[in-house]
Amino acid sequence: MPIVRATRRFHFAAAHRLFRPDWSDERNREVFGACTNPNWHGHNYEVDVTVEGPVDPETGYVMDLKRLRDILDARVVRDVDHRNLNVEVDWMEGMNPTTENLAVAIWNRIAGGLPEGTRLAKVVVHETPRNSVEYTGQV
Amino acid sequence: MPIVRATRRFHFAAAHRLFRPDWSDERNREVFGACTNPNWHGHNYEVDVTVEGPVDPETGYVMDLKRLRDILDARVVRDVDHRNLNVEVDWMEGMNPTTENLAVAIWNRIAGGLPEGTRLAKVVVHETPRNSVEYTGQV
Amino acid sequence: MPIVRATRRFHFAAAHRLFRPDWSDERNREVFGACTNPNWHGHNYEVDVTVEGPVDPETGYVMDLKRLRDILDARVVRDVDHRNLNVEVDWMEGMNPTTENLAVAIWNRIAGGLPEGTRLAKVVVHETPRNSVEYTGQV
Amino acid sequence: MPIVRATRRFHFAAAHRLFRPDWSDERNREVFGACTNPNWHGHNYEVDVTVEGPVDPETGYVMDLKRLRDILDARVVRDVDHRNLNVEVDWMEGMNPTTENLAVAIWNRIAGGLPEGTRLAKVVVHETPRNSVEYTGQV
Amino acid sequence: MPIVRATRRFHFAAAHRLFRPDWSDERNREVFGACTNPNWHGHNYEVDVTVEGPVDPETGYVMDLKRLRDILDARVVRDVDHRNLNVEVDWMEGMNPTTENLAVAIWNRIAGGLPEGTRLAKVVVHETPRNSVEYTGQV
Amino acid sequence: MPIVRATRRFHFAAAHRLFRPDWSDERNREVFGACTNPNWHGHNYEVDVTVEGPVDPETGYVMDLKRLRDILDARVVRDVDHRNLNVEVDWMEGMNPTTENLAVAIWNRIAGGLPEGTRLAKVVVHETPRNSVEYTGQV
Repeated sequence: MPIVRATRRFHFAAAHRLFRPDWSDERNREVFGACTNPNWHGHNYEVDVTVEGPVDPETGYVMDLKRLRDILDARVVRDVDHRNLNVEVDWMEGMNPTTENLAVAIWNRIAGGLPEGTRLAKVVVHETPRNSVEYTGQV
Repeated sequence: MPIVRATRRFHFAAAHRLFRPDWSDERNREVFGACTNPNWHGHNYEVDVTVEGPVDPETGYVMDLKRLRDILDARVVRDVDHRNLNVEVDWMEGMNPTTENLAVAIWNRIAGGLPEGTRLAKVVVHETPRNSVEYTGQV
Repeated sequence: MPIVRATRRFHFAAAHRLFRPDWSDERNREVFGACTNPNWHGHNYEVDVTVEGPVDPETGYVMDLKRLRDILDARVVRDVDHRNLNVEVDWMEGMNPTTENLAVAIWNRIAGGLPEGTRLAKVVVHETPRNSVEYTGQV
Repeated sequence: MPIVRATRRFHFAAAHRLFRPDWSDERNREVFGACTNPNWHGHNYEVDVTVEGPVDPETGYVMDLKRLRDILDARVVRDVDHRNLNVEVDWMEGMNPTTENLAVAIWNRIAGGLPEGTRLAKVVVHETPRNSVEYTGQV
Repeated sequence: MPIVRATRRFHFAAAHRLFRPDWSDERNREVFGACTNPNWHGHNYEVDVTVEGPVDPETGYVMDLKRLRDILDARVVRDVDHRNLNVEVDWMEGMNPTTENLAVAIWNRIAGGLPEGTRLAKVVVHETPRNSVEYTGQV
Repeated sequence: MPIVRATRRFHFAAAHRLFRPDWSDERNREVFGACTNPNWHGHNYEVDVTVEGPVDPETGYVMDLKRLRDILDARVVRDVDHRNLNVEVDWMEGMNPTTENLAVAIWNRIAGGLPEGTRLAKVVVHETPRNSVEYTGQV
């Protein structure tokens, strides 16, 4: 049975700022530059979620991507779309919302809920058309 | 002499919310939905600015697009990139920052400063890959 | 009041073939080539619908693009997505489903149902990344 | 000698439906939803084929991508472009044409015919801008 | 009969430099900057050619886009792909190959050879993802 | 600590030809076809550079992508943008500028200068929207 990776892309729009509350404003500005603007800024985030597993000989699917879409809507999009990543998202509380931390947090939201026999293989978050981050669960 | 249109694309990331301070929160929510979230959200804006004019027989340019880029940097990008469109941009003060109002405001920032013999022909603002607005100066 | 154009993009996947039932198979093949394959082929269609009107001084909108999305879902997407354009779409009955005819048919589905004060300005249908068609209501 | 991966993108337009002839229509509908529409639907498929090998010190190529293009044309595009994946493609006979099965089938069409010293590393099939599948030959 | 615009996209890769032989090197450098580098530079040009006309009631086409593709191949791509725009293209001889001049030259290559009843409506040349030029035949 | 990959995209425009000075013109033409045109051709190159490392618990970054951008500007873009890859780039001297050799050369320019604790993971060079090459340092 071939092992295949299936990817679903989704997007959301959110506000954020890079900021550590335990640092002075000067240090935040020094390290994060314009990204720490106290009045926030925001992005259209594009996210690619990849699931790996054997192709089910019955359906020809690794998993139904409509089901993956529903998981992503329920576990991620609903919480972050048109939201502020610093102050409104339970599962990012206490985190500085860099693209890196966001990718890991999305991974942690999804990894446990996939169909038996599949595994989460990769989460890619594009913050802008130029900057992106990829997490594969490696620690 | 052929009359040609030359377009320069630029982008910026900003926070905003759709909001009228003279309306109740309920009415803002009713009309603007998730877009009025008081904690803001944001976008990667892509903007296409088009200048029209005769092709200069000396240079072969309508205008030097590097000069147009400098005008856009100085008059637009510097003010809006990594900013909050509701509270930090002088030339949007008192405006609800819809894509329509943003396109008109960008038009007004640029229209007066172009080289003699050219005219601003079009401003297109893409708020998301799905939603965009075009203004050609028509009133 | 500025007159602005607002565009919403949507997409759908459909099967079709270029075919005139009143022509012989030979003539269909001669004129339409591989596009008349009797076993069908299909596309991911991308459609841009543009509405023009004054910016409402109350909302800052030409029209709410979420409302436009709902109109497009109800009047177009529901009927064509994962469908066969030759045999399953009432409002294309008797038409050869070229990109041209599809653009005009989508125009006719939408033009009458827009909010007062706005008008349908343009329908662009991308059949492939290389081929597209634009209709502005001109006859 | 550096080991490098070279990728060629190609595309085709085809009709298909997800369908198992040994299942009832009800079960096909239950599992595959709109994708099993008996009147077919279709897509613009985008495919990325990646070949890996040492950079030839003579040419500076892993392999000539024009030669890869010719292989892809002869072994894949010619058979699937403007075709119906369920009923017209020999090498997909008896398969449910999911994106997963299509990626594996394309792999099998190509893997054996590459120049000595190179190996097929990856086949990615984009069924829509949102859904894609990747196969690397793993079983 | 609806009047529709049909667009075909094509691309080519070419070298060029912005340069006037009747100017000193200093003046060329002053006006054209890095674009006048005597050792050349180059681009992947993307070109959209738009033809306008009534939809033929027989075929449902403005014109067959495969025929337009063949015209573009024969009249443009063959001459410019993998070429140097300053020294190898007859129909650009004596022209400074700015994007503006290139768009007008492509227009002039095509405008006369379209099917009766159609007219060339627009040529758009994208020199980079950020810079483009549009010509509609206006003088 | 999660290990994450962060990617920065940049682009440049350059001229080149595929060519071995120790081969006859006939042999160059035979092997490289139109790509060896003695008058050059060129491309808009898009390059993705990926750095891997643990997420810094202080900043939430693998590394600051603005710092990566500065490294790429200083070590790559400054040398190749609006240049001729065959004759003007020190660090490609004596190389046939195929996409493969270019990817390896860019790798070698960057690999040594990254922050401690990170490593260069991947360089992808897109020569055209259809052809790309990926190097991960494997020999």
